[in-house]
Amino acid sequence: MSVTAPAGFAASGIASGIKPGGALDLALVAADPPAPVAAAATFTSNAAAAAPVQVSRDHLGASGGKAAAVVLNSGCANAATGAEGRATADMMCALVAAELGVRAGDVLVCSTGLIGIPLPRAPLEQGIGRLVAEREATAGAAALAARAIMTTDTRPKVAIVNGPGFSVGGMAKGAAMLRPDMATMLAVLTTDAAVGPVELAAALGRAVTGSFNELTVDGCTSTNDTVVVLASGLAGRADPGDLEQALAEACSDLAGQMAADAEGATKVALVKVSGAASPGDARRAARRIAESQLVKCSLYGNDPYWGRVVSEAGSSGAAFDIDLVSVSYGPVTVCRAGTAAAHDVEALRAYMAGKRIEIGCDLGLGPASAEVLTTDLGPGYIDENRSTS
Amino acid sequence: MSVTAPAGFAASGIASGIKPGGALDLALVAADPPAPVAAAATFTSNAAAAAPVQVSRDHLGASGGKAAAVVLNSGCANAATGAEGRATADMMCALVAAELGVRAGDVLVCSTGLIGIPLPRAPLEQGIGRLVAEREATAGAAALAARAIMTTDTRPKVAIVNGPGFSVGGMAKGAAMLRPDMATMLAVLTTDAAVGPVELAAALGRAVTGSFNELTVDGCTSTNDTVVVLASGLAGRADPGDLEQALAEACSDLAGQMAADAEGATKVALVKVSGAASPGDARRAARRIAESQLVKCSLYGNDPYWGRVVSEAGSSGAAFDIDLVSVSYGPVTVCRAGTAAAHDVEALRAYMAGKRIEIGCDLGLGPASAEVLTTDLGPGYIDENRSTS
Repeated sequence: MSVTAPAGFAASGIASGIKPGGALDLALVAADPPAPVAAAATFTSNAAAAAPVQVSRDHLGASGGKAAAVVLNSGCANAATGAEGRATADMMCALVAAELGVRAGDVLVCSTGLIGIPLPRAPLEQGIGRLVAEREATAGAAALAARAIMTTDTRPKVAIVNGPGFSVGGMAKGAAMLRPDMATMLAVLTTDAAVGPVELAAALGRAVTGSFNELTVDGCTSTNDTVVVLASGLAGRADPGDLEQALAEACSDLAGQMAADAEGATKVALVKVSGAASPGDARRAARRIAESQLVKCSLYGNDPYWGRVVSEAGSSGAAFDIDLVSVSYGPVTVCRAGTAAAHDVEALRAYMAGKRIEIGCDLGLGPASAEVLTTDLGPGYIDENRSTS
Repeated sequence: MSVTAPAGFAASGIASGIKPGGALDLALVAADPPAPVAAAATFTSNAAAAAPVQVSRDHLGASGGKAAAVVLNSGCANAATGAEGRATADMMCALVAAELGVRAGDVLVCSTGLIGIPLPRAPLEQGIGRLVAEREATAGAAALAARAIMTTDTRPKVAIVNGPGFSVGGMAKGAAMLRPDMATMLAVLTTDAAVGPVELAAALGRAVTGSFNELTVDGCTSTNDTVVVLASGLAGRADPGDLEQALAEACSDLAGQMAADAEGATKVALVKVSGAASPGDARRAARRIAESQLVKCSLYGNDPYWGRVVSEAGSSGAAFDIDLVSVSYGPVTVCRAGTAAAHDVEALRAYMAGKRIEIGCDLGLGPASAEVLTTDLGPGYIDENRSTS
């Protein structure tokens, strides 16, 4: 079901011809019936933000937090495409709006794919009528939408969370250029909870901070990252805490699916820094460890070389006293008081061969902690990214 | 000749048994005759600085910028080794000092190799007497010293620069964990110019900033980075500008050799950012582009995918207006005013297949520029780093 699970939403996904070979490449999530509902979004922090990000940001700002639909395409990022690209993004919104009978400013737009290539207009002009006409409030339609936003993803990513008296649905894509800062991927969430735009934006911001923004694959912040949430209100007023928790669960679920499907990754690692002097220090150290090429190569090789973990924590800028540091892989402590700790070598070997690794790094300085999800770095990542042609 | 090219220095390199199989692993560069001379050094900014870094920093601080010798070992970083490790580094200095007839505080010490493993004392106790006895002011002895500091380096790195009336010699090692911040490697420089410690430290600082600190291989700042310079004074007073220039040339030469020999790299890339609003912005953008896993994968695949360059510049934190950005590979401009520029595809293909690539990124905003040297990211890097055992 994903985005159509909450009451008041329809979705669709079609092959418009942006991608060659008839692959799905155009998706819609729309309020049903079509009318502006409360909406919030977080966008990439990249100053090279793509045309659709610029247009969506403007629309959401001008509407005061309302939107009726989100149109998304894969196969082209419409980034670094200048005024032409912005006109194309505007056109996508206008075509969807005309079909739905809403204003262009009520439509948000997302694109994902290669940067620097013009997004062709003919498939959009020919396809959007069909995209809107085929929308349904069904599980099948939601599944098509989730597939239509995939790029190098190997599987669609969907989530449903049932809160007390309301539900949250979501779909996402993301496989590389993945360092959520904000989120470095596309995600659309829906809920039938009734909530105002300001409250919705705050809840989304916190949900994204604790999920997508704690995921890093390659440290690269994309030009197109967008997370949108639409709230139909059909389930009535929800407790703000309950809504925030359900949104956070849906985002964490999708973020975990993105990590597991990251380009070329063979395993997922959760870096847990504790004992930091401040929350900022904890995040800095966890991010630095999680983004380290050397730590990620060790993960790929099942090598418990904790020296790299200590070195990255030490160079992260966080307050640091090596004599207080301990490092563990899962249940096995390998470094205590800054030096090697005796441990069960066979138990450690078995643990490192697993598909999900927890790296613990206790700085021994204070009460703050942070977690960042990452992946290993193996030849698969290079194979995926060495050439776009 | 390298470190023995300037008058007043002797060197040696032996196999002490730290490394298995009889490989060279212990090196000495000493003033000849042995007595404290002007010295300066820059050390890693990593808060997990290794024992030898802590000891050398203390010695140089207490002596007011004088040293008689540098002893270096490969095969073990003596990092994350606690009080034991510091005692071992102290012991190395004391043993060398006793043989040379100087104070322990006049000896500096450097180590390189794996982190978190105790540096064995027996090879040092048995080897340092021989190391000191075998020192010579010859080219052969300098070559042995340069080989004895290698880890995964495939070739020794040496440099000689002849200034007006004086010379500078140098040797270095470095192949991974290479992001100079400071320098992420070991280097020893010598000169026969006469210069005070304060002036020497200033000249070294500027030389390192413009060379080793503009090199990044994997963004990892090592625990052991050290660059030391000793000045015998035997050639008499040199013009400070001339000395600084000679030091900078020697450092740049060594940094280029390190990039060319970086673990698993198949090509070297010089990232040149221009048109930045400030020097800090230029460095930020250049560093971000040079450290991008995606940009480096593209280099490995000979893929001129400039979208990644724009995206990294945009997420670097530098002031940025995509409509003003241009990107070039060597002589071929591929992006102008933030969008694709028509270009000679065949000429570009031929250029990208080369072993040395220049990536130009003009931000179009101001007068500042910066350069960072980096490498591609291919399977060789992963093969080298996936396992230390």
